Parts: sequence; C-alpha cells; structure tokens
Amino acid sequence: MIAGKQSIRFDKKVYISCGATVVGNKEYAGPLGGEFDIVVEDEMFGKNSWEEAESRMQHMAVDKLFIKSGLKKSDVRYVFAGDLLGQLIATTFGLKGIDIPVLGVYGACSTMGETIALSSIMVDGGYADNVIALASSHFASAEKQFRFPLAYGNQRPESATWTVTGAGAYMISGQCNNTGDVSGNNFMNETVGKAVVTGVTVGKIVDYGVKDSMNMGACMAPAAASLIEANFNDFGIDENYYDLIITGDLGYTGRIILLDLLKEKGINIESRYNDCGLLIYDSEAQNTQSGGSGCGCSGVVLNAYILNRIRSKTLSRVLFVPTGAMLSPVSFNEGHSVPSVAHGIMIESE
Amino acid sequence: MIAGKQSIRFDKKVYISCGATVVGNKEYAGPLGGEFDIVVEDEMFGKNSWEEAESRMQHMAVDKLFIKSGLKKSDVRYVFAGDLLGQLIATTFGLKGIDIPVLGVYGACSTMGETIALSSIMVDGGYADNVIALASSHFASAEKQFRFPLAYGNQRPESATWTVTGAGAYMISGQCNNTGDVSGNNFMNETVGKAVVTGVTVGKIVDYGVKDSMNMGACMAPAAASLIEANFNDFGIDENYYDLIITGDLGYTGRIILLDLLKEKGINIESRYNDCGLLIYDSEAQNTQSGGSGCGCSGVVLNAYILNRIRSKTLSRVLFVPTGAMLSPVSFNEGHSVPSVAHGIMIESE
Repeated sequence: MIAGKQSIRFDKKVYISCGATVVGNKEYAGPLGGEFDIVVEDEMFGKNSWEEAESRMQHMAVDKLFIKSGLKKSDVRYVFAGDLLGQLIATTFGLKGIDIPVLGVYGACSTMGETIALSSIMVDGGYADNVIALASSHFASAEKQFRFPLAYGNQRPESATWTVTGAGAYMISGQCNNTGDVSGNNFMNETVGKAVVTGVTVGKIVDYGVKDSMNMGACMAPAAASLIEANFNDFGIDENYYDLIITGDLGYTGRIILLDLLKEKGINIESRYNDCGLLIYDSEAQNTQSGGSGCGCSGVVLNAYILNRIRSKTLSRVLFVPTGAMLSPVSFNEGHSVPSVAHGIMIESE
Repeated sequence: MIAGKQSIRFDKKVYISCGATVVGNKEYAGPLGGEFDIVVEDEMFGKNSWEEAESRMQHMAVDKLFIKSGLKKSDVRYVFAGDLLGQLIATTFGLKGIDIPVLGVYGACSTMGETIALSSIMVDGGYADNVIALASSHFASAEKQFRFPLAYGNQRPESATWTVTGAGAYMISGQCNNTGDVSGNNFMNETVGKAVVTGVTVGKIVDYGVKDSMNMGACMAPAAASLIEANFNDFGIDENYYDLIITGDLGYTGRIILLDLLKEKGINIESRYNDCGLLIYDSEAQNTQSGGSGCGCSGVVLNAYILNRIRSKTLSRVLFVPTGAMLSPVSFNEGHSVPSVAHGIMIESE
C-alpha cells in the first residue's frame, strides 16, 4: 500500500525469516565477533584474487542461508543481490551456479536496504513465497577498486572508514517457520521474536558536493537525513516510534553530521540512534578510524546485532537505513562530487 | 500472479504509457533514424567527458518523457535506472537532481528489461501509479571502460558489436491517457494501440565459458535461449504465441548461436525472430560489424521499432528480451569468462 510520497506499507506479513553471515578475521575480532555464522581466516577465501574471494563469500552466505532456513533452491523464486564492484562481478560470479533467477541492484553501501526492500515487495505483492536478499563487500577488493593498492600503505585520515569483509544473506518470506539447522551461535533467540518488515522508504539521490573519497560519512549523511525525514513524514510518526534508528556506515564523522542535519529540521534522534559502522569494530583497538563501511557492514550487522535483538524482543521497532556513497574511480578522477542514497527498512518484532 | 518457475503474469493492466528516446548521430543515420525523439549532433552532449555526456542523455530522456506524457514529477513515485558503467555513474549523475526516489539496477545490456520488469511489478502490485524505467549507454564511455582508448584505433573483428549512444525512458503506468505533446515524429500511431505489459520472465545467470570481449553475442546467446525456453514453459505457450521475439543485442553472431541453441531444445523461432542490434544500424554501410549493443540499444529500439508497431497494431504480441553480458574490465583482465543474463517482457497490443 502506498504510504506518503516515498514509502510503502505492507498489508501482508513479510518476514525476514532467516539470516546468514560470513565475515573475515578482522570482523571476528570486533565486538560482534561471536554473532556471525561463518568466519574465514584466509582473506583470500581459498581463491586467487580479492574479487574471487568476495564471490566465494556470497556463495557461502547463500549456502548457509539454505542450511539455516531448511529451504531448498526450488523454494526460492528470486535473488536480489549486489556489491560495490564495477559491473557487480562479486555477485555475478558468486551466483552464476545458483540456478535461481537473479536481479542485480546497485546502491553502493545502501544495497542491503535496496535488496530487502525489493524482496519484500515481491513477497507482499504475492509474486513469491521466498526471495533472497544478498549483499557483500571485501576490504581488499574495495580498496583496490576505489583507492590505493594495499601494498602502497597509504595513510588513512580520521574520517576514513574501513570496508567490512562480509556478506549477508536474508530469506524474505511470507511465512516464518525455519526447519533447518538453527543450532548456530546466533540463533539462540530465533524462536522467541519474529522479524517483520512492515514498510520501506525509497531514497532520492542527494548531493551536497562533498568530493573527499576518504570521508564517505560526510558524503552520505545528507541522504540519511533526507530518508529519515521522509520516513517520519510518510508514516506520520516521529523518532519515538522506534527503539532504534540505525544507519549503515556513516561512522563517527557521518554520525555527527547526520544528527546536526536532522536537528536543523527539528528532529532529534540522538537517544535512539546508532550506526552499523560503529558497532562492528573496536575503532581504537582495531585502528579502523571512523568505523566500518561497505555493503557488507550493514549486511552482517543486520543479523548479528539488529535481528538478534528483534528475536530476543530487546528491540521491537527498528528503522534500518543502509547508506550508499555513489563513489566511482572514474567520476572521482574526473573531479566530481560523491552523490549518495539511502533506503529505509522498518523492522518490527512479532 | 506467479507463473511457472521464473515468471509473473500481471492481473492488472500495466501499460507502457509513453516512451522517449535520445540518440547520437550514428543512430540517426541508421534505418530507424526518423523514429527517435531527440538526436544530438555533439557526441559530448555539450559536456566535458563521455560519462557526463551519458548522464546528460539520461536527463534529456526523462525530460522528454515528462513532456510527451504530460505527467509531472509529483505523478511519478519511483525511477528504476541503470547503465553499463562501474557504480552506475551515468545514472547517478543523470538523476541526481530529479527529486524522485531512485532504485539503481545492474544487468549489463539487459538493464532495460530489468527496469521495466520491476517497474511493472510496482504498478501491478499497487505500489505506484507511474514508475519510470530508464537505461542508457554511450559508445565512447563504454569503449573507454571496457576495451581500448578510442585514439588507439584498434581493429574490430566481425563478431564485435557497436555500443549504441542512446537513452530510453519509459513511463510504466496503471492508465494510458497521455495528455502531453505527442506531436513528435514517432507518436503518429499513439492513439491506435496501447502497449500492455502482460508478464515478465526473470533470467538466471548463464555461463558457457566464453571469454572473448569482442564477441558479446556468443556470451549472451545462452542466456537468451534459457530465457525464451523458460518463458514458453512458464506460460505454457510456444513461438506461435508471439508475432515477434526480439533480443537486445546479440548481433549477427549471437543470432545464429541463439537459433542453433533453441533448435537443440526443439524450439524454432526463426520465422518471428529479430534483434534490436540488427535493426539500429546498416551494418555494412555504417561499419558496425555484428550490430548494435549496449543498454541503449534495446532501450531506444523498444520505442522506435517495437512500441510504434504495437501502437499501429502491426504487432500484437511481442517477447522483448534484452540480453546482458556481465563483462567487467577487472574480471576480464583476471582471465575470467563473461557470464550473461537476460530478462523477458511480454508486450501486447490493446
């Protein structure tokens, strides 16, 4: 059902019925380390290139999702998937053997929001019983594509974020009764609360003219502010509706800007605001500067932190806002700004 | 409504209520030249880079779509858009001022199919009255990204296709009553037939191991064959259901492979088959080797050829199958194959 100018409210029950996450060593060493499903010590994931490693991560996340959900390939109609790399090669090569129709999306680090939004529409609209939403990033493939060769050892300013090596796969379903192996470390609360997607808000492309590829938080904060304001307006609510409003990867720098931008609009979310990029690493001990970033950041924190707390009913209403900086080496080298976009997913406990 | 394993049949009327196309000189010089809405002589479109030129084309196509349809920005809820460039920069910069929520998609040259499929679902599902589906490509930005600098003057084998400089924008709507300026050269038949999207088939990623970046037709033909077979199976039909089955950009080389692959499955579509890449240029006179390609190829031929014939009721049932080769300079340089994907749109005259 149409809600306001940018949003959709779902009439049917749309569940995030299962989530599966794969991460690397550095993410395992962070505060959420014990909450991920699969940790791989080898940063190459047994492959020959960073890109192949990221594809392998996507493949592993989907495999784990099938194991945890108890669903078979034939139960899933579509996969919405994306990553940060040009022409989505992590996705293409990660899913080429999956034998399920694939719809590729690109929203930079907002991709986890876009895939869940579109998957939820497919389920609510009666076009599918189960759809997989998938997103990934890899620190090394991202640095190679967007910034400097790792061997160059460039200095990182305080505003720089650290691209998460991780993939998150989610089963978006009309029903929520997993029959698979839910004995893993992050499924202890699975049977208590169910995660329902009650609505989505689709973001506009916002550009405040920031050109600093080492300050993605500043690039994305305006899109996050625009999205949160639109969500409140479209549903006729304010910050008190939510227990938690959580952005994707604004980091410490973007956090301050977002809170300031919203205050200018008369909105104060500080008491219930967090950012996936602030949760995944211990910034000081792990030397990750402004925090975590990448599609994989919101992609794995969603299950490890948010959904676990929805399941345990510690949280009952969450606005999940993955944020994307539309950075490209080509436009950056041509001197352009970094426009950004954010998509919002309303997740409630049942 | 779910149809078969990969397809959706629409219960409501979903119209392609309006189409607008922008092309360059070479496309204007081809057999469909008189059927495009806007032709720009300057290949830079008044901008400073090929990428900016492509963004400008997207912007112009959307502007023209508003003029032709008579709709305002506030009438349109979402834009689904994409292009061939890494991180979708043609789209990002083309749409950053549009003030409508944007959902970026990537399906290589199948993008026009993916954007129309998802836009149609939005309309059929009751999530929007009007959605814009948009795709573009530019010969020079594509050659720069995927192959050689233009100044290098590399030789082109007979299997090479020529990336179309073009953008196609389509209004996907629950109603079909344009009130805008339809006096343009390709709207003479507008009032006769209406184009209805009756169903879509979503493709799987198919990889036959072809590694030749100068033979996109061979890379994509297997995905097209898989899609056409799935469409027939899902709807319980055969080639006789359609007046025209038209792929995106297989070219002369891919055409033969597709027909052969389908014959192996016992399907013969030859009598009603065509390819957008074969229609847009006079291959011999214009030195375009195997034919046209790129998101913009199917993106502009859809309106200039297919929809014009739907409107004049020369065609009554068309299967439109944009085909995408998931080529990336990174994966190509690492020695990988070029997997492909195709999406199918069933367009019928009302």
